[in-house]
Amino acid sequence: MAKKSFPLSKVYGLLEPGPVFMVTTARSGRQNIMTMSWHTMMEFEPPIVGCVISNRNHSFGLLKATKEYIINIPTVEIAEKVVGCGNTSGANVDKFERFCLTPKPADRVSAPLIEECFENLECLVADTSMVSKYCFFVVEVIKAWIDPAVKNPQTLHHLGSGNFMVAGEKIKLKSKMT
Amino acid sequence: MAKKSFPLSKVYGLLEPGPVFMVTTARSGRQNIMTMSWHTMMEFEPPIVGCVISNRNHSFGLLKATKEYIINIPTVEIAEKVVGCGNTSGANVDKFERFCLTPKPADRVSAPLIEECFENLECLVADTSMVSKYCFFVVEVIKAWIDPAVKNPQTLHHLGSGNFMVAGEKIKLKSKMT
Repeated sequence: MAKKSFPLSKVYGLLEPGPVFMVTTARSGRQNIMTMSWHTMMEFEPPIVGCVISNRNHSFGLLKATKEYIINIPTVEIAEKVVGCGNTSGANVDKFERFCLTPKPADRVSAPLIEECFENLECLVADTSMVSKYCFFVVEVIKAWIDPAVKNPQTLHHLGSGNFMVAGEKIKLKSKMT
Repeated sequence: MAKKSFPLSKVYGLLEPGPVFMVTTARSGRQNIMTMSWHTMMEFEPPIVGCVISNRNHSFGLLKATKEYIINIPTVEIAEKVVGCGNTSGANVDKFERFCLTPKPADRVSAPLIEECFENLECLVADTSMVSKYCFFVVEVIKAWIDPAVKNPQTLHHLGSGNFMVAGEKIKLKSKMT
């Protein structure tokens, strides 16, 4: 199924619930994938996201050098691949090949989209002032894609030590300021 | 049910899945509650948390002045109260009174615990260098409490516009680095 462009003004609703996501980076013809869930929205539009990528991760150097990455949000159907990417290092493994994931060209950045993820967010690093102290990168989402066939994405939420919560039922409550 | 002390080393597993939480602050005998979900873990232990509290919120000034707050994590049972606190301003409403929530004294900070939340994290502001640009506060959790009777907390996860996802089933996957 071809992905469709997704409005930047709605990106916060994808990240605010706290899903695990996979960051893809690319440099000098090599690509990498990193699984993570230490992230937060920081502004609605343009969507600004803050995330921690440890300097012990192979992706840290790639991101510092290229200043761009893609956030790929997976669902429970590929949970084994998500955890596999989190348990291996891109220093010695081609994770696309190892975990049978499909890289697709992005529109605005060099890093690849992961085809198997229902949502892909192309990002540019916007602020590195907290990288040295906290490995905290502030990025701006400049282009968003969604798989229109996925109506009720069962995202993964990490509880620690390999335990995950899968997105459950949805409820609606009045949320206008009164 | 009396709350019990909770190990600081396990706090990340409560916040990493991305639950909505309620921040309590106190100053000069007045208390406030703010509902939010723009937060991320930044370090395991001591647990460091980053969160955005807009300068349009009454809690912003209280937090800047007192440099301490409490993170209170609610479950779906009190969803109406959680949303109610998000839809009103502490500038003109006593939210504990309005929403029948119970303030309890904390151990290490002046802000009150919300009794009805299954988890309470006492926090001190650790870094304000990103407050002026992003309203982003870095805090350290110095004391954590849990209600031992709540075995499978059904946390709330905000999807935007008053839509929430309720924590669903749990799965376990091998997560050791190989």
